[in-house]
Amino acid sequence: MRVAVVGGTGDFGLALARRLAEAGDYVVIGSRDAERARTKAAEAGAAAGASNADAVGGVDLVVLAVKADAALPTAAELADAIDETPVLSVASELRFAGGGAYPSDESRSLAERTQELLHGPVAAGLHSLAAASLADGRSDGDALVCGDDGHAKELALELGAKVVTGRALDAGPLAGARALEGMTAVIVNLNRRYKGHAGVSVTGL
Amino acid sequence: MRVAVVGGTGDFGLALARRLAEAGDYVVIGSRDAERARTKAAEAGAAAGASNADAVGGVDLVVLAVKADAALPTAAELADAIDETPVLSVASELRFAGGGAYPSDESRSLAERTQELLHGPVAAGLHSLAAASLADGRSDGDALVCGDDGHAKELALELGAKVVTGRALDAGPLAGARALEGMTAVIVNLNRRYKGHAGVSVTGL
Repeated sequence: MRVAVVGGTGDFGLALARRLAEAGDYVVIGSRDAERARTKAAEAGAAAGASNADAVGGVDLVVLAVKADAALPTAAELADAIDETPVLSVASELRFAGGGAYPSDESRSLAERTQELLHGPVAAGLHSLAAASLADGRSDGDALVCGDDGHAKELALELGAKVVTGRALDAGPLAGARALEGMTAVIVNLNRRYKGHAGVSVTGL
Repeated sequence: MRVAVVGGTGDFGLALARRLAEAGDYVVIGSRDAERARTKAAEAGAAAGASNADAVGGVDLVVLAVKADAALPTAAELADAIDETPVLSVASELRFAGGGAYPSDESRSLAERTQELLHGPVAAGLHSLAAASLADGRSDGDALVCGDDGHAKELALELGAKVVTGRALDAGPLAGARALEGMTAVIVNLNRRYKGHAGVSVTGL
């Protein structure tokens, strides 16, 4: 698969790029800074580095791996460059307060709002994978993926299967991203409470 | 522990009552129909059955196990009877459409909205446990519990630990119920897609 990782110089994007390159994918790391993208691509064993707009050309799947607060502006900015290429949304909006991490106050997921800005289909997933665990090898547990478009979801599942020790699982329609994104807050709280690197594994399938 | 299960004649409530009674808890099954509550209590090995309003008196924890669409009206109706006794909210709002199960369109969880109606603290949890799996014994996987009140959450965790094969885990503030309730839709979709009885296990702790 040819994959562009937009925001691929960040902790999560870079770890993901590394795992995908290792699995044999043709990976292009995108960044606002093309020079930095090239340096990081060399480090990660990725095929190439480029500006975000150049990175998304000619790939099968674009992973939007910028931080949550940059996800919507970046999607809007890259919409024409991405055109109808499927996108995988991996970010989660979190809010931190005294009691821990809180899920977003928005009723709709970041993935659903990203979908409105793009011409092609959006799938969402990998929210339970921490950058720290992905940096050292495949993440423990399963990769949950959701989406309304069959082709985008298939690509996202194929990608997910390469980066976890468990399975990539089809979690249903894109609206399920409300839960998957919210689980990031739960995972952050579990990590704080139990001093771990939590992931999610689905039992009983 | 003394536990009242409001809506304890439903599939989930009855299965929960059965597991708790088995674990040695003093369980009162509540129902709008007291006679039916008594019959089901005898079936489940619970200590007693009563009307919902009578069931919640003198217990340590009230489990609000009515169906999602009855959760808020039932909480409002029982608020004075429950008084300051901690409540565990286990219901999830789901919507079904062509593509599968969808999480709620509300930005706030059912548990947070239940909290507003009650005088005492609300914890939320056990959303990933299916009635069908709990009916035959402990559910596979972990019980995730969240809440803003330490005492209510402790009781909920103590209860959760008795009904799963895994652990009862503190998932942080009550707002995390947005994710936990939403995961019910994800689990329903996984069950349909992979013909299973999905539960959630947290890796890496």
